[in-house]
Amino acid sequence: SGLVLVKNPHLDLMEEDILYHLDLGTKTHNLPAMFGDIKFVCVGGSPNRMRAFAQFMQRELGLPGAGEDVADICSGSDRYAMYRAGPVLSISHGMGIPSISIMLHELIKLLHHAKCRDVTIIRIGTSGGLGIEAGSVVITDTAVDSSFQPRFEQVVLDDVVVRSTELDKDLAEELLACSRDIADFPTLIGHTMCTYDFYEGQGRLDGALCSFSSEKKLEYLRRAYDAGVRNIEMESTAFAALCGLCGLKGESLSLPPHMG
Amino acid sequence: SGLVLVKNPHLDLMEEDILYHLDLGTKTHNLPAMFGDIKFVCVGGSPNRMRAFAQFMQRELGLPGAGEDVADICSGSDRYAMYRAGPVLSISHGMGIPSISIMLHELIKLLHHAKCRDVTIIRIGTSGGLGIEAGSVVITDTAVDSSFQPRFEQVVLDDVVVRSTELDKDLAEELLACSRDIADFPTLIGHTMCTYDFYEGQGRLDGALCSFSSEKKLEYLRRAYDAGVRNIEMESTAFAALCGLCGLKGESLSLPPHMG
Repeated sequence: SGLVLVKNPHLDLMEEDILYHLDLGTKTHNLPAMFGDIKFVCVGGSPNRMRAFAQFMQRELGLPGAGEDVADICSGSDRYAMYRAGPVLSISHGMGIPSISIMLHELIKLLHHAKCRDVTIIRIGTSGGLGIEAGSVVITDTAVDSSFQPRFEQVVLDDVVVRSTELDKDLAEELLACSRDIADFPTLIGHTMCTYDFYEGQGRLDGALCSFSSEKKLEYLRRAYDAGVRNIEMESTAFAALCGLCGLKGESLSLPPHMG
Repeated sequence: SGLVLVKNPHLDLMEEDILYHLDLGTKTHNLPAMFGDIKFVCVGGSPNRMRAFAQFMQRELGLPGAGEDVADICSGSDRYAMYRAGPVLSISHGMGIPSISIMLHELIKLLHHAKCRDVTIIRIGTSGGLGIEAGSVVITDTAVDSSFQPRFEQVVLDDVVVRSTELDKDLAEELLACSRDIADFPTLIGHTMCTYDFYEGQGRLDGALCSFSSEKKLEYLRRAYDAGVRNIEMESTAFAALCGLCGLKGESLSLPPHMG
């Protein structure tokens, strides 16, 4: 049916659903009227960048009001920022798996309550490239963890549940085809490694703590490259797992920092 | 000596240290002049709340400019917000362990470069209470993970390193004594449980996914209570581990949501 799936039998029994961190709710807002026609959701870490992206989409789509400021739909909360441009929603998710997970739980319920159909969600965050041409965009086929495994370990109460992190292969190919229409836009499909930490977890030598040598770092990154990893960021495994479970066609495009 | 310790031999060899997510650096900013007299750092998730806290401290300390707006020292980055009020720095850390870890790595390096001495750091974030009087403030003695263990598992490259999560017991007692001077300010010392997820990880029945019953949830929370847990949040184990390793006297005060 193309509807977004929530997998929670308790939700039907609730009189009201409050999306705490988005400052929206089923009693306080008419979610179908506000969001029923959304077809694309783009997410990224930085609120300023997601506002700039919404303004860019307004211009690209030739929407009325293009060039003017866009309003933050979640202005009552400073946890996330949300903007819309026609059928496109642009939302920030902060940094790291816990932060994107809270946003995605509430976004998925929002799309469900709004009865949205056939929604495509694309993460357009920054990442660090691995052995690729500087400035390249990486389209993720599979998100992998720090051991290069295509899995997301979710703690449910005190059990660990392992979830799949595959993304939509057709959408990946479609996005790659789009990139070919643009000159000087190096783009490739590869695995994206997702870590819980930016410094010690990604082999950086400039954190407050660093217990490994430059050689050990390079050896690790070489093993990652050999396992198919082409970029490293901090949200993709949770993003892939949640989108997959809830029937959202999802893709992760990782941009080099200068495009952020 | 009371100095903040960095444990990274590579830092001494670097010509410049850029604190990317704070938009500060050793070549672009005179960190000792800007921050050398800082004695207290207060951190919490929300940027608006940390601005309000800095304004509150300005008034409490009777500083010049009290009542006026405070400037965001990290205004060049939208990852974190940082304000100061006399010897007190007030910084937001976003939500979850990865987000607070990035901020703490860069904050610890900032305090190190600024040659700060005898710095006390206090997390004043929100949390959910567990079996305690509504509105109570919990002072953390030990941060525990979702299995109620006093440990933080840090992935370093692809190794897992287990770190201690004890906080400063004397500081906890000192803060408890302060609370006794204020009427109607229920405060207690207890364990704080830190999870990677707000919905499935904390037993919430209203996420986009929920595979457990209300009974299973209550049984888990009861076990947590029996293990000494009095509140649940998403940053304390990483906070305790990093502060402990870098010689920062640290405490975590968890506030009920209405005080946030």
